[in-house]
Amino acid sequence: MAEGDLSAPPGARTLLLDTASAIMREGDVVDISLSELSLRSGLNSALVKYYFGNKAGLLKALLDRDWQAIVTSVDALVQKGDMTPEAKLRRHISKVVDTFYAIPYLNRLTMRLVRESDDAEARRIADSYLSPMYRAYDALIEEGVSAGVFRKVDPQLFYFTVTGAVDRFFSVRLVLKHCFDQDTLTEELRDRYREHTVDIIMAGILAR
Amino acid sequence: MAEGDLSAPPGARTLLLDTASAIMREGDVVDISLSELSLRSGLNSALVKYYFGNKAGLLKALLDRDWQAIVTSVDALVQKGDMTPEAKLRRHISKVVDTFYAIPYLNRLTMRLVRESDDAEARRIADSYLSPMYRAYDALIEEGVSAGVFRKVDPQLFYFTVTGAVDRFFSVRLVLKHCFDQDTLTEELRDRYREHTVDIIMAGILAR
Repeated sequence: MAEGDLSAPPGARTLLLDTASAIMREGDVVDISLSELSLRSGLNSALVKYYFGNKAGLLKALLDRDWQAIVTSVDALVQKGDMTPEAKLRRHISKVVDTFYAIPYLNRLTMRLVRESDDAEARRIADSYLSPMYRAYDALIEEGVSAGVFRKVDPQLFYFTVTGAVDRFFSVRLVLKHCFDQDTLTEELRDRYREHTVDIIMAGILAR
Repeated sequence: MAEGDLSAPPGARTLLLDTASAIMREGDVVDISLSELSLRSGLNSALVKYYFGNKAGLLKALLDRDWQAIVTSVDALVQKGDMTPEAKLRRHISKVVDTFYAIPYLNRLTMRLVRESDDAEARRIADSYLSPMYRAYDALIEEGVSAGVFRKVDPQLFYFTVTGAVDRFFSVRLVLKHCFDQDTLTEELRDRYREHTVDIIMAGILAR
């Protein structure tokens, strides 16, 4: 396609990412078809090439967008001076539930891109997103342990406990839908699961 | 292949399932190649057709084998008369960690087969394996709540908390291996994660 053919409306890049995210969320998949993307966004699928090179580039851009928002938000929480460690962790766990409700594909997309990437790109993903999360958990938990309100737990293992419990809930959606005619992606169930998870995990870490 | 060509050694069916399980566990995948299966088991890949019809049939048989062992074991635990509810749940959570250590592909295999099955087969999987787990959790938790040792939690949500926390740990293995040169599939790490998980989740559910 010649450059002159491109008529990229303002916000087209963002709209492509938003639409790709919605397709994966609703379809419970970690893939998109360019024709569906074009149909739903109302944008020429050549714009994918223009902005992202190809579909793999689009998926990578989506991963970066989603993770950067998470890392920025967690870093801000760690830095907050006017909150107790308990309130911080409680807010963080609530946020994890809301995040996986919004982007239930995140874990599977991360795994897919790590699997399909070369070593340098896999390491970039790890260094950019997983390492900051580990560091944030180190800080959040160390603060609570020092204050005597948290039991001493391994922050890295605790990270798996939290994200696993949450991720699993939304990723099991397909089974619930298929087999029990339940949709886990409702606000009512999200709120119930948020309360349940905060409750169980906070009770699990608080010092008696 | 004529039937006369088949020389199925005793235990060949079991050996095929064991080998398929080992391939998926070690490769962190939910698929097998019949040539690799044949090479590693030392068995003619025509035996897959003989016992299972095709590869999909083999995967289904593996799912059934793995889930039946879990359901039988959980049912026996629920029935045990000489254990406190707390001891039962503690043993169950330990067992979940050991199960996912042995068959880390279980959740993903279940999702794959539900996704690729027709409605009747998806419902069979749900009725045979997920419903019994829900019922077991209902019983285990109700027993503890009645005895005043557990807080009142939603058994179905609690099921996701437990299995998600455990499953995630082993399914993130690829990332840890790729990015941090760690292998989560070691007995040392399994034991550490078992202790951590039992600790956090029991503290999360016990009444104060």
